[in-house]
Amino acid sequence: MIVDVCLSPQLYTHYHRANSIVVVVDIFRASSTIVSAFEQGVAAIRPVASIQEAESYKAKGWLIGAERNVRRCSFADFGNSPNEYTADKVGNQKVVFTTTNGTKALHMATEADQIVIGAFTNIQAVADYCLKQQKDVVVLCSGWEDKVNVEDSLFAGALASILIKNGYTSAGDSTLIATTLWSNAATDLSGFIEKTEHIKRLKNNNLQKDAAYCLTLNLSNKVPFYSKKDNLLTV
Amino acid sequence: MIVDVCLSPQLYTHYHRANSIVVVVDIFRASSTIVSAFEQGVAAIRPVASIQEAESYKAKGWLIGAERNVRRCSFADFGNSPNEYTADKVGNQKVVFTTTNGTKALHMATEADQIVIGAFTNIQAVADYCLKQQKDVVVLCSGWEDKVNVEDSLFAGALASILIKNGYTSAGDSTLIATTLWSNAATDLSGFIEKTEHIKRLKNNNLQKDAAYCLTLNLSNKVPFYSKKDNLLTV
Repeated sequence: MIVDVCLSPQLYTHYHRANSIVVVVDIFRASSTIVSAFEQGVAAIRPVASIQEAESYKAKGWLIGAERNVRRCSFADFGNSPNEYTADKVGNQKVVFTTTNGTKALHMATEADQIVIGAFTNIQAVADYCLKQQKDVVVLCSGWEDKVNVEDSLFAGALASILIKNGYTSAGDSTLIATTLWSNAATDLSGFIEKTEHIKRLKNNNLQKDAAYCLTLNLSNKVPFYSKKDNLLTV
Repeated sequence: MIVDVCLSPQLYTHYHRANSIVVVVDIFRASSTIVSAFEQGVAAIRPVASIQEAESYKAKGWLIGAERNVRRCSFADFGNSPNEYTADKVGNQKVVFTTTNGTKALHMATEADQIVIGAFTNIQAVADYCLKQQKDVVVLCSGWEDKVNVEDSLFAGALASILIKNGYTSAGDSTLIATTLWSNAATDLSGFIEKTEHIKRLKNNNLQKDAAYCLTLNLSNKVPFYSKKDNLLTV
Protein backbone atom coordinates (compact mmCIF):
# COMPACT_ATOMS: atom_id res chain seq x y z
CA MET A 1 0.00 0.00 0.00
CA ILE A 2 0.99 3.56 -0.72
CA VAL A 3 0.67 6.69 1.39
CA ASP A 4 0.62 10.07 -0.33
CA VAL A 5 0.28 13.63 0.96
CA CYS A 6 -1.60 16.49 -0.71
CA LEU A 7 -0.48 19.80 0.78
CA SER A 8 -3.38 21.96 -0.47
CA PRO A 9 -7.01 21.22 -1.42
CA GLN A 10 -6.38 23.00 -4.73
CA LEU A 11 -3.86 20.31 -5.71
CA TYR A 12 -6.10 17.36 -4.84
CA THR A 13 -6.93 16.29 -8.40
CA HIS A 14 -3.22 15.52 -8.91
CA TYR A 15 -3.13 13.27 -5.84
CA HIS A 16 -6.43 11.45 -6.24
CA ARG A 17 -6.09 7.65 -6.11
CA ALA A 18 -8.87 5.23 -6.94
CA ASN A 19 -10.00 3.03 -4.02
CA SER A 20 -8.04 5.03 -1.48
CA ILE A 21 -8.81 6.28 1.99
CA VAL A 22 -8.58 10.08 2.11
CA VAL A 23 -7.71 11.42 5.55
CA VAL A 24 -8.87 15.05 5.70
CA VAL A 25 -7.02 17.17 8.24
CA ASP A 26 -7.45 20.71 9.53
CA ILE A 27 -5.55 20.71 12.80
CA PHE A 28 -6.42 24.35 13.66
CA ARG A 29 -9.19 23.55 14.26
CA ALA A 30 -11.96 21.91 12.25
CA SER A 31 -10.78 18.31 12.31
CA SER A 32 -9.70 18.52 15.95
CA THR A 33 -13.12 19.96 16.81
CA ILE A 34 -14.99 17.24 14.90
CA VAL A 35 -13.05 14.51 16.71
CA SER A 36 -13.75 16.24 20.03
CA ALA A 37 -17.49 16.48 19.29
CA PHE A 38 -17.67 12.73 18.55
CA GLU A 39 -15.68 11.98 21.68
CA GLN A 40 -18.38 13.95 23.56
CA GLY A 41 -21.16 11.92 21.98
CA VAL A 42 -22.50 13.97 19.08
CA ALA A 43 -24.78 11.80 16.88
CA ALA A 44 -23.80 13.21 13.51
CA ILE A 45 -22.19 16.28 11.90
CA ARG A 46 -23.19 17.71 8.52
CA PRO A 47 -20.39 19.77 6.93
CA VAL A 48 -21.63 22.59 4.69
CA ALA A 49 -19.67 25.13 2.68
CA SER A 50 -21.56 28.37 3.24
CA ILE A 51 -22.71 30.35 6.25
CA GLN A 52 -26.15 30.79 4.65
CA GLU A 53 -26.61 27.04 4.35
CA ALA A 54 -25.56 26.51 7.95
CA GLU A 55 -28.02 29.14 9.17
CA SER A 56 -30.87 27.50 7.23
CA TYR A 57 -30.61 24.44 9.53
CA LYS A 58 -31.62 26.50 12.57
CA ALA A 59 -35.33 26.09 11.81
CA LYS A 60 -34.85 22.34 11.32
CA GLY A 61 -33.79 21.71 14.92
CA TRP A 62 -30.09 21.21 14.30
CA LEU A 63 -27.38 22.73 16.44
CA ILE A 64 -25.06 25.00 14.43
CA GLY A 65 -21.28 25.25 14.51
CA ALA A 66 -20.08 28.11 12.30
CA GLU A 67 -16.74 29.89 12.14
CA ARG A 68 -15.04 32.35 9.81
CA ASN A 69 -11.52 33.67 10.31
CA VAL A 70 -11.12 32.09 13.75
CA ARG A 71 -14.34 33.60 15.21
CA ARG A 72 -17.76 32.12 15.90
CA CYS A 73 -20.55 33.42 13.64
CA SER A 74 -23.09 35.36 15.69
CA PHE A 75 -26.11 33.16 14.83
CA ALA A 76 -24.33 29.90 15.72
CA ASP A 77 -24.50 27.72 18.84
CA PHE A 78 -20.81 26.93 18.60
CA GLY A 79 -17.74 28.20 16.82
CA ASN A 80 -14.72 26.09 15.92
CA SER A 81 -13.34 25.50 19.40
CA PRO A 82 -13.04 21.85 20.45
CA ASN A 83 -13.92 22.63 24.06
CA GLU A 84 -17.31 24.18 23.16
CA TYR A 85 -18.73 20.83 22.08
CA THR A 86 -19.35 19.37 25.54
CA ALA A 87 -21.33 16.17 26.19
CA ASP A 88 -24.21 18.03 27.86
CA LYS A 89 -24.67 20.19 24.77
CA VAL A 90 -23.96 17.86 21.86
CA GLY A 91 -24.73 14.37 23.25
CA ASN A 92 -27.01 12.58 20.75
CA GLN A 93 -27.56 15.84 18.84
CA LYS A 94 -27.08 16.62 15.16
CA VAL A 95 -24.76 19.52 14.33
CA VAL A 96 -24.37 21.36 11.04
CA PHE A 97 -20.82 22.70 10.71
CA THR A 98 -19.05 25.25 8.51
CA THR A 99 -15.49 26.55 8.91
CA THR A 100 -13.07 28.71 6.93
CA ASN A 101 -11.04 25.87 5.46
CA GLY A 102 -11.95 22.44 6.81
CA THR A 103 -15.24 21.79 5.05
CA LYS A 104 -13.80 22.82 1.66
CA ALA A 105 -11.17 20.05 1.73
CA LEU A 106 -13.84 17.53 2.69
CA HIS A 107 -15.91 18.37 -0.37
CA MET A 108 -12.84 18.30 -2.67
CA ALA A 109 -12.31 14.65 -1.82
CA THR A 110 -15.77 13.34 -2.59
CA GLU A 111 -14.50 11.04 -5.34
CA ALA A 112 -12.45 9.09 -2.83
CA ASP A 113 -13.54 5.62 -1.81
CA GLN A 114 -13.54 6.47 1.89
CA ILE A 115 -13.08 9.75 3.69
CA VAL A 116 -12.18 9.98 7.37
CA ILE A 117 -11.25 12.87 9.66
CA GLY A 118 -7.73 12.99 11.06
CA ALA A 119 -6.28 15.08 13.88
CA PHE A 120 -3.40 14.73 16.29
CA THR A 121 -6.03 13.89 18.89
CA ASN A 122 -7.01 10.67 17.04
CA ILE A 123 -3.89 9.98 14.96
CA GLN A 124 -3.23 6.45 16.23
CA ALA A 125 -6.88 5.49 15.76
CA VAL A 126 -6.76 6.76 12.18
CA ALA A 127 -3.52 4.87 11.55
CA ASP A 128 -5.05 1.69 12.96
CA TYR A 129 -8.12 2.18 10.75
CA CYS A 130 -5.95 2.51 7.63
CA LEU A 131 -3.77 -0.46 8.56
CA LYS A 132 -6.87 -2.60 9.08
CA GLN A 133 -8.35 -1.55 5.70
CA GLN A 134 -5.09 -2.16 3.84
CA LYS A 135 -5.86 0.49 1.23
CA ASP A 136 -3.81 3.30 -0.26
CA VAL A 137 -4.01 6.47 1.83
CA VAL A 138 -3.99 10.11 0.75
CA VAL A 139 -3.64 12.67 3.53
CA LEU A 140 -5.43 15.82 2.37
CA CYS A 141 -4.29 18.97 4.15
CA SER A 142 -6.85 21.77 4.39
CA GLY A 143 -4.24 24.51 4.51
CA TRP A 144 -5.29 28.15 4.85
CA GLU A 145 -7.30 29.56 1.95
CA ASP A 146 -5.59 27.07 -0.38
CA LYS A 147 -2.11 28.02 0.83
CA VAL A 148 0.04 25.32 2.40
CA ASN A 149 0.24 25.38 6.19
CA VAL A 150 2.64 23.82 8.64
CA GLU A 151 0.32 22.19 11.17
CA ASP A 152 -1.60 20.10 8.61
CA SER A 153 1.64 19.18 6.84
CA LEU A 154 3.07 18.04 10.18
CA PHE A 155 0.06 15.81 10.82
CA ALA A 156 0.47 14.37 7.31
CA GLY A 157 4.12 13.63 8.05
CA ALA A 158 3.29 12.07 11.40
CA LEU A 159 0.57 9.80 9.99
CA ALA A 160 2.69 8.86 6.96
CA SER A 161 5.58 7.98 9.29
CA ILE A 162 3.39 5.60 11.30
CA LEU A 163 2.05 3.96 8.14
CA ILE A 164 5.52 3.62 6.57
CA LYS A 165 6.82 2.03 9.77
CA ASN A 166 4.00 -0.50 9.37
CA GLY A 167 4.72 -1.47 5.79
CA TYR A 168 3.29 1.32 3.65
CA THR A 169 5.42 2.82 0.85
CA SER A 170 5.86 6.57 0.41
CA ALA A 171 4.26 7.80 -2.82
CA GLY A 172 7.04 10.28 -3.37
CA ASP A 173 8.19 13.83 -2.88
CA SER A 174 5.36 15.48 -0.97
CA THR A 175 5.32 12.58 1.49
CA LEU A 176 9.10 12.98 1.89
CA ILE A 177 8.63 16.70 2.55
CA ALA A 178 5.95 16.02 5.18
CA THR A 179 7.85 13.23 6.98
CA THR A 180 11.04 15.33 6.99
CA LEU A 181 9.12 18.25 8.46
CA TRP A 182 7.64 15.96 11.12
CA SER A 183 11.09 14.58 12.02
CA ASN A 184 12.10 18.17 12.86
CA ALA A 185 9.06 18.85 15.01
CA ALA A 186 8.18 15.55 16.66
CA THR A 187 10.18 16.07 19.84
CA ASP A 188 8.84 19.60 20.41
CA LEU A 189 5.62 20.01 18.46
CA SER A 190 4.39 23.07 20.38
CA GLY A 191 7.77 24.76 20.02
CA PHE A 192 7.82 24.20 16.27
CA ILE A 193 4.25 25.45 15.92
CA GLU A 194 5.30 28.72 17.60
CA LYS A 195 6.96 29.64 14.28
CA THR A 196 3.78 29.27 12.21
CA GLU A 197 1.22 31.72 10.86
CA HIS A 198 -1.92 30.32 12.43
CA ILE A 199 -0.68 30.21 16.01
CA LYS A 200 -0.54 34.02 15.82
CA ARG A 201 -4.19 34.17 14.73
CA LEU A 202 -5.18 31.88 17.61
CA LYS A 203 -3.16 33.89 20.16
CA ASN A 204 -4.68 37.14 18.89
CA ASN A 205 -8.05 35.62 19.81
CA ASN A 206 -6.89 34.22 23.18
CA LEU A 207 -7.16 30.65 21.92
CA GLN A 208 -3.84 29.29 23.21
CA LYS A 209 -5.73 26.56 25.09
CA ASP A 210 -7.30 25.39 21.84
CA ALA A 211 -3.87 25.21 20.22
CA ALA A 212 -2.47 23.11 23.07
CA TYR A 213 -5.48 20.77 22.85
CA CYS A 214 -5.21 20.38 19.07
CA LEU A 215 -1.51 19.45 19.39
CA THR A 216 -2.10 16.70 21.97
CA LEU A 217 -1.80 13.18 20.58
CA ASN A 218 -4.31 10.40 21.06
CA LEU A 219 -7.05 11.87 23.21
CA SER A 220 -9.69 9.92 21.29
CA ASN A 221 -10.13 6.63 19.50
CA LYS A 222 -12.99 7.96 17.34
CA VAL A 223 -12.53 7.93 13.56
CA PRO A 224 -15.25 10.14 12.03
CA PHE A 225 -16.32 8.69 8.70
CA TYR A 226 -17.84 10.78 5.93
CA SER A 227 -20.82 9.53 3.92
CA LYS A 228 -21.02 11.33 0.59
CA LYS A 229 -24.55 10.04 0.01
CA ASP A 230 -25.89 11.62 3.18
CA ASN A 231 -23.32 14.45 3.46
CA LEU A 232 -22.88 13.32 7.04
CA LEU A 233 -20.05 12.49 9.43
CA THR A 234 -20.64 9.66 11.87
CA VAL A 235 -18.58 7.18 13.90
CA MET B 1 11.34 42.83 2.56
CA ILE B 2 9.53 39.56 2.54
CA VAL B 3 10.45 36.22 0.98
CA ASP B 4 7.70 33.73 0.17
CA VAL B 5 7.71 30.28 -1.41
CA CYS B 6 5.11 28.84 -3.78
CA LEU B 7 5.47 25.06 -3.94
CA SER B 8 3.44 24.48 -7.14
CA PRO B 9 2.63 26.64 -10.19
CA GLN B 10 -1.04 25.82 -9.64
CA LEU B 11 -0.96 27.69 -6.30
CA TYR B 12 0.73 30.81 -7.67
CA THR B 13 -2.29 33.11 -7.59
CA HIS B 14 -2.37 32.72 -3.79
CA TYR B 15 1.29 33.76 -3.48
CA HIS B 16 1.37 36.62 -5.99
CA ARG B 17 2.76 39.86 -4.55
CA ALA B 18 2.67 43.21 -6.32
CA ASN B 19 6.11 44.66 -7.17
CA SER B 20 7.93 41.47 -6.30
CA ILE B 21 10.76 39.56 -7.92
CA VAL B 22 9.60 36.06 -8.86
CA VAL B 23 12.42 33.52 -8.96
CA VAL B 24 11.31 30.63 -11.16
CA VAL B 25 13.07 27.34 -10.43
CA ASP B 26 13.09 23.94 -12.10
CA ILE B 27 16.26 22.33 -10.79
CA PHE B 28 15.83 19.10 -12.84
CA ARG B 29 16.54 20.56 -15.32
CA ALA B 30 15.07 23.56 -17.13
CA SER B 31 16.36 26.37 -14.94
CA SER B 32 19.78 24.72 -14.52
CA THR B 33 19.96 24.31 -18.31
CA ILE B 34 18.98 27.94 -18.95
CA VAL B 35 21.69 29.19 -16.59
CA SER B 36 24.21 26.87 -18.27
CA ALA B 37 23.29 28.14 -21.75
CA PHE B 38 23.81 31.77 -20.69
CA GLU B 39 27.10 30.83 -19.04
CA GLN B 40 28.09 29.41 -22.45
CA GLY B 41 27.18 32.63 -24.24
CA VAL B 42 23.70 32.12 -25.69
CA ALA B 43 22.26 35.46 -26.86
CA ALA B 44 18.63 34.88 -25.86
CA ILE B 45 16.16 32.10 -25.01
CA ARG B 46 12.47 32.18 -25.87
CA PRO B 47 10.40 29.87 -23.64
CA VAL B 48 7.30 28.45 -25.32
CA ALA B 49 4.64 26.12 -23.96
CA SER B 50 4.02 23.69 -26.80
CA ILE B 51 6.15 21.39 -28.92
CA GLN B 52 4.35 22.63 -32.05
CA GLU B 53 5.29 26.23 -31.32
CA ALA B 54 8.92 25.26 -30.71
CA GLU B 55 9.08 23.37 -33.99
CA SER B 56 7.68 26.36 -35.89
CA TYR B 57 10.87 28.31 -35.07
CA LYS B 58 13.01 25.90 -37.10
CA ALA B 59 12.28 27.71 -40.35
CA LYS B 60 13.07 31.06 -38.70
CA GLY B 61 16.71 30.19 -38.05
CA TRP B 62 16.45 29.60 -34.32
CA LEU B 63 18.07 26.70 -32.53
CA ILE B 64 15.54 24.51 -30.73
CA GLY B 65 15.67 23.00 -27.26
CA ALA B 66 12.70 20.70 -26.67
CA GLU B 67 12.10 18.05 -24.03
CA ARG B 68 9.18 16.00 -22.80
CA ASN B 69 9.34 13.48 -19.97
CA VAL B 70 13.12 13.72 -19.62
CA ARG B 71 13.87 13.01 -23.34
CA ARG B 72 14.85 15.28 -26.23
CA CYS B 73 12.18 15.70 -28.91
CA SER B 74 13.37 14.21 -32.18
CA PHE B 75 13.15 17.43 -34.23
CA ALA B 76 15.15 19.49 -31.71
CA ASP B 77 18.81 20.55 -31.68
CA PHE B 78 18.99 20.10 -27.92
CA GLY B 79 17.03 18.48 -25.14
CA ASN B 80 17.01 19.64 -21.53
CA SER B 81 20.54 18.65 -20.58
CA PRO B 82 22.77 21.51 -19.35
CA ASN B 83 25.87 20.00 -20.96
CA GLU B 84 24.37 20.04 -24.47
CA TYR B 85 24.40 23.82 -24.63
CA THR B 86 28.12 24.31 -25.31
CA ALA B 87 29.71 27.62 -26.31
CA ASP B 88 30.54 26.41 -29.85
CA LYS B 89 26.89 25.56 -30.47
CA VAL B 90 24.95 28.29 -28.64
CA GLY B 91 27.40 31.23 -28.53
CA ASN B 92 25.55 34.36 -29.76
CA GLN B 93 22.65 32.20 -30.98
CA LYS B 94 18.93 32.45 -30.21
CA VAL B 95 17.29 29.34 -28.77
CA VAL B 96 13.58 28.55 -28.47
CA PHE B 97 12.96 26.27 -25.48
CA THR B 98 10.12 24.06 -24.26
CA THR B 99 10.21 21.60 -21.36
CA THR B 100 7.74 19.46 -19.43
CA ASN B 101 7.40 21.76 -16.43
CA GLY B 102 9.77 24.72 -16.46
CA THR B 103 8.18 26.92 -19.10
CA LYS B 104 4.72 26.56 -17.53
CA ALA B 105 5.82 28.14 -14.26
CA LEU B 106 7.45 30.98 -16.14
CA HIS B 107 4.21 31.83 -17.90
CA MET B 108 2.20 31.56 -14.65
CA ALA B 109 4.23 34.39 -13.15
CA THR B 110 3.80 36.96 -15.91
CA GLU B 111 2.01 39.40 -13.60
CA ALA B 112 5.11 39.72 -11.48
CA ASP B 113 7.18 42.88 -11.59
CA GLN B 114 10.38 41.01 -12.41
CA ILE B 115 11.00 37.37 -13.25
CA VAL B 116 14.42 35.75 -13.02
CA ILE B 117 15.66 32.18 -13.34
CA GLY B 118 17.10 30.48 -10.27
CA ALA B 119 19.11 27.27 -9.95
CA PHE B 120 21.62 25.90 -7.49
CA THR B 121 24.24 26.76 -10.10
CA ASN B 122 23.52 30.51 -9.79
CA ILE B 123 21.93 30.72 -6.33
CA GLN B 124 24.33 33.27 -4.83
CA ALA B 125 24.07 35.48 -7.93
CA VAL B 126 20.26 35.38 -7.65
CA ALA B 127 20.44 36.18 -3.94
CA ASP B 128 22.78 39.12 -4.64
CA TYR B 129 20.40 40.35 -7.34
CA CYS B 130 17.44 40.27 -4.93
CA LEU B 131 19.40 41.93 -2.12
CA LYS B 132 20.45 44.72 -4.48
CA GLN B 133 16.87 45.29 -5.70
CA GLN B 134 15.45 45.33 -2.15
CA LYS B 135 12.07 43.99 -3.29
CA ASP B 136 9.84 41.25 -1.98
CA VAL B 137 10.74 37.85 -3.42
CA VAL B 138 8.50 34.91 -4.34
CA VAL B 139 10.29 31.66 -5.19
CA LEU B 140 8.06 29.80 -7.64
CA CYS B 141 8.75 26.06 -7.79
CA SER B 142 7.93 24.33 -11.08
CA GLY B 143 7.24 20.97 -9.47
CA TRP B 144 6.31 17.98 -11.60
CA GLU B 145 3.02 18.27 -13.48
CA ASP B 146 1.73 20.63 -10.77
CA LYS B 147 2.72 18.24 -7.96
CA VAL B 148 5.17 19.47 -5.35
CA ASN B 149 8.73 18.22 -5.76
CA VAL B 150 11.66 18.08 -3.39
CA GLU B 151 14.49 19.55 -5.46
CA ASP B 152 12.69 22.82 -6.27
CA SER B 153 11.47 23.10 -2.67
CA LEU B 154 15.06 22.64 -1.48
CA PHE B 155 16.26 25.44 -3.74
CA ALA B 156 13.46 27.65 -2.40
CA GLY B 157 14.56 26.86 1.15
CA ALA B 158 18.21 27.53 0.34
CA LEU B 159 17.51 30.89 -1.32
CA ALA B 160 15.06 31.94 1.40
CA SER B 161 17.67 31.05 4.04
CA ILE B 162 20.27 33.31 2.39
CA LEU B 163 17.78 36.18 2.10
CA ILE B 164 16.55 35.80 5.70
CA LYS B 165 20.18 35.83 6.93
CA ASN B 166 20.52 39.13 5.08
CA GLY B 167 17.50 40.85 6.58
CA TYR B 168 14.47 39.48 4.73
CA THR B 169 11.43 38.27 6.70
CA SER B 170 9.79 34.89 6.06
CA ALA B 171 6.27 35.31 4.65
CA GLY B 172 5.04 32.31 6.61
CA ASP B 173 4.37 28.62 6.55
CA SER B 174 5.51 27.51 3.11
CA THR B 175 8.78 29.38 3.58
CA LEU B 176 9.20 27.66 6.95
CA ILE B 177 8.56 24.27 5.31
CA ALA B 178 11.15 24.99 2.59
CA THR B 179 13.84 26.30 4.95
CA THR B 180 13.31 23.37 7.32
CA LEU B 181 13.63 20.95 4.41
CA TRP B 182 16.82 22.70 3.29
CA SER B 183 18.27 22.50 6.84
CA ASN B 184 17.92 18.71 6.58
CA ALA B 185 19.60 18.46 3.19
CA ALA B 186 22.22 21.22 3.12
CA THR B 187 25.12 19.11 4.36
CA ASP B 188 24.43 16.24 1.95
CA LEU B 189 22.31 17.54 -0.91
CA SER B 190 23.04 14.63 -3.28
CA GLY B 191 22.30 12.11 -0.55
CA PHE B 192 18.95 13.71 0.23
CA ILE B 193 18.04 13.89 -3.46
CA GLU B 194 18.58 10.12 -3.70
CA LYS B 195 15.23 9.73 -1.91
CA THR B 196 13.26 11.75 -4.47
CA GLU B 197 11.05 10.83 -7.43
CA HIS B 198 12.86 12.64 -10.21
CA ILE B 199 16.33 11.25 -9.54
CA LYS B 200 14.90 7.87 -10.53
CA ARG B 201 13.67 9.26 -13.86
CA LEU B 202 17.10 10.78 -14.52
CA LYS B 203 18.92 7.54 -13.61
CA ASN B 204 16.58 5.53 -15.83
CA ASN B 205 17.79 7.74 -18.68
CA ASN B 206 21.49 7.58 -17.67
CA LEU B 207 21.47 11.23 -16.66
CA GLN B 208 23.29 10.96 -13.32
CA LYS B 209 25.88 13.47 -14.55
CA ASP B 210 23.14 16.03 -15.20
CA ALA B 211 21.82 15.52 -11.67
CA ALA B 212 25.27 16.08 -10.15
CA TYR B 213 25.72 19.23 -12.25
CA CYS B 214 22.30 20.61 -11.32
CA LEU B 215 23.07 20.13 -7.61
CA THR B 216 26.38 22.01 -7.71
CA LEU B 217 26.26 25.46 -6.16
CA ASN B 218 27.53 28.66 -7.76
CA LEU B 219 28.96 27.60 -11.11
CA SER B 220 27.66 30.79 -12.73
CA ASN B 221 27.05 34.43 -11.89
CA LYS B 222 24.47 34.84 -14.66
CA VAL B 223 20.93 35.85 -13.65
CA PRO B 224 18.63 35.23 -16.65
CA PHE B 225 15.94 37.89 -16.74
CA TYR B 226 12.56 37.35 -18.39
CA SER B 227 10.98 40.07 -20.52
CA LYS B 228 7.23 39.55 -20.76
CA LYS B 229 6.95 42.05 -23.61
CA ASP B 230 9.37 40.11 -25.81
CA ASN B 231 8.80 36.65 -24.28
CA LEU B 232 12.56 36.42 -24.06
CA LEU B 233 15.20 35.51 -21.50
CA THR B 234 18.42 37.49 -21.56
CA VAL B 235 21.23 38.41 -19.17
